[in-house]
Amino acid sequence: MPRDGGPARLRLRQAALDLYGEHGFDQVTTAEIAARAGVTERTFYRHFADKREVLFDGEQTLRDALVAGVADAPEALAPLPTLLWAFRAVAAVLETNRSFSEPLQRVIAATPALRERAQAKAAALVEALATALRDRGAAESTAALAAQIGMAVFSHVGASWFLHPDRNLDELIRETFEDLRALTVPLATADGSSRAGAKD
Amino acid sequence: MPRDGGPARLRLRQAALDLYGEHGFDQVTTAEIAARAGVTERTFYRHFADKREVLFDGEQTLRDALVAGVADAPEALAPLPTLLWAFRAVAAVLETNRSFSEPLQRVIAATPALRERAQAKAAALVEALATALRDRGAAESTAALAAQIGMAVFSHVGASWFLHPDRNLDELIRETFEDLRALTVPLATADGSSRAGAKD
Repeated sequence: MPRDGGPARLRLRQAALDLYGEHGFDQVTTAEIAARAGVTERTFYRHFADKREVLFDGEQTLRDALVAGVADAPEALAPLPTLLWAFRAVAAVLETNRSFSEPLQRVIAATPALRERAQAKAAALVEALATALRDRGAAESTAALAAQIGMAVFSHVGASWFLHPDRNLDELIRETFEDLRALTVPLATADGSSRAGAKD
Repeated sequence: MPRDGGPARLRLRQAALDLYGEHGFDQVTTAEIAARAGVTERTFYRHFADKREVLFDGEQTLRDALVAGVADAPEALAPLPTLLWAFRAVAAVLETNRSFSEPLQRVIAATPALRERAQAKAAALVEALATALRDRGAAESTAALAAQIGMAVFSHVGASWFLHPDRNLDELIRETFEDLRALTVPLATADGSSRAGAKD
C-alpha cells in the first residue's frame, strides 16, 4: 500500500472525516468515501484496508516519526529527555495535521469501535517507543517504564491541546514534561508531602 | 447485581477462567460456565451481564478500592505519593486475587476482544483516579496528569509482577515509583543527560 501521502490519499482521508462527521461512522460506505474524494473504490482499497484504517493513517506516520525521533536524539540523553526530544521533533508534523486531528478526535469519541482501536494503537505506540529506547541501550525494564510514562505525558498533551487549540504544541509538550518532573519531586521526601524536602 | 463476592460468584469466576483457558474464550457458553460452577444459568445472569464481564469482576472491585485508598490517604500527601499510598493499600487484595489474575492475563492476551475491553477498563480507572484526586483538592490538569502517570506505573508493576511472580507486590510498587522518580531527574538538567546535574 502506498504510504506517500499523495493527493488521492489525502483527499480520501478528508472525505472520510467529512462523511463520518455528517452521517456517523457506521452509516458511511467506502464507495461513498471514494465518490466524495473523486476516485474509484478500487483506488480507496489501494490505499486503505478498510474504512476504519483511513482514520488511523496518521497514527502510523506518527509512530514512524516518533521512533525515528528517538533514534536521532543526541546520544547523551537519558530515556525521558529522549522522549521529550522526539515528541518536540514531531510537533511540527502534528501542527500541520491539526485540520485532520480535531474532527478525528470527535469521530473517535462518538464511536465505541473506534475508541477501542485508538486504545490499541496507543498500546502499539508504547511498544514501539520501548523498543526504540532499548535500541539506544536502555535496559528492558527502564525502556518499558519510560515508554509508558512518555505515552501518559503525550496523552495528556493531546487532551490539553484539544481543550486549548490556540496553545503552541511545542510549548505544551515542554510544560507537561516539566509538570511531570514537578509531580515526582515529593516522592523523594520522607513524608511524600507537597512541601518537597520539608521533612527530609 | 450482587457484588458481595459470595461463594457462587467466586465459583462462577473460577469456572469461567478454567473453561476459557481450556477451550478459548469464544468457544465457551454461559450455560457451560454455570454447569461447571454447579449453579443455574439464571444464577450466572444474576451476577454478571455477560460472559465477558465475569472476567472483569475484579476490576470493579479494584477500582473501588483504589478510589477509597485515594480518599483515605493522609491529607498532606501530594498527588503521586497519594497514588503510591493507594496502590500499596490494595496490594494485599491483589495478592489474594493472584490465583485469578495470572490465568486472567493469559486469557486476555489470547483474545483480541478482551484486550480491547481491558484497555477500556484501564481508561475508566484513569478517569476514576483523576476524579478522586480532584476530590482531594488537586487542580484539574494536575489530577489528570498524575492519574495518567500513576496508571502507567501501575501497568508496569503489573507486567513486572507477571514476569516475576515470586516478587513481593508491595516492594515492586515502591521500587517502580522510585524508578519513576529517578527517570525524571535528568529532565531537570540543562542538557537532559543521564549524568543528572552534571552540567547544570
